[in-house]
Amino acid sequence: MVEVELSRIVIDETSDEQVIVLKEKNGRRSFPIVIGIFEALAINRVISERKMPRPLTHELLVSVLHAFGAKLTRCLVSDLRNNTYYAILTLQRDGKTYEVDARPSDAVTLALHEKAAIFVEDSVMDSVAREEGEAL
Amino acid sequence: MVEVELSRIVIDETSDEQVIVLKEKNGRRSFPIVIGIFEALAINRVISERKMPRPLTHELLVSVLHAFGAKLTRCLVSDLRNNTYYAILTLQRDGKTYEVDARPSDAVTLALHEKAAIFVEDSVMDSVAREEGEAL
Repeated sequence: MVEVELSRIVIDETSDEQVIVLKEKNGRRSFPIVIGIFEALAINRVISERKMPRPLTHELLVSVLHAFGAKLTRCLVSDLRNNTYYAILTLQRDGKTYEVDARPSDAVTLALHEKAAIFVEDSVMDSVAREEGEAL
Repeated sequence: MVEVELSRIVIDETSDEQVIVLKEKNGRRSFPIVIGIFEALAINRVISERKMPRPLTHELLVSVLHAFGAKLTRCLVSDLRNNTYYAILTLQRDGKTYEVDARPSDAVTLALHEKAAIFVEDSVMDSVAREEGEAL
């Protein structure tokens, strides 16, 4: 597993496909994930720390975690199959660990929200990542 | 508290404001709530039982509830202040009850998803509901 961070988000409201770029924390490799516009706007809201008057859906999810005394400890981009990235949320509560299947966009939104670490499985990183400066 | 059901959803993709109508289960009163387009599409997906290949954000929230062995038992439209409706999700886990603040659109989406009952506080119902056939 390689720890990454969100290094870029490209939002083009005229397009159906938005892009986030995840970059190695201790390295130069990065790769893009195509996400939807709603998902990109949700991530952008977390980054820009724009406080909404009412809880949006990700904030509701965070409220539910907090209500149960649970914590999001990690989000892992675990797989890439048929051009679709998969992610796994790791939640902890009362010393127990729970893993939940998620889209990378939700996983990244929640990780940024909760300041949880974002990881990418080595096999995924090795198959898609490029060094900075390399053509994608 | 009055039990209601979703009686109508009006989606106009050219408008920023979509409408859901909640109607008394054992009566003729109903009232509209204005919601956003993303929220209306999420509700519409649940109603039409359109199965998405990957979990969308509400489905992720439901997965988290299931992972914890928790159940959504009720959604309550609890208040109306400054033209904004408030809702409360009631969750149960291990015999304990948790209440979480939510937007009505998220609350209704989750209630439909989990086949939980939807209620409206009497004070809200009395202030906004109209009998069917009455002008809004």
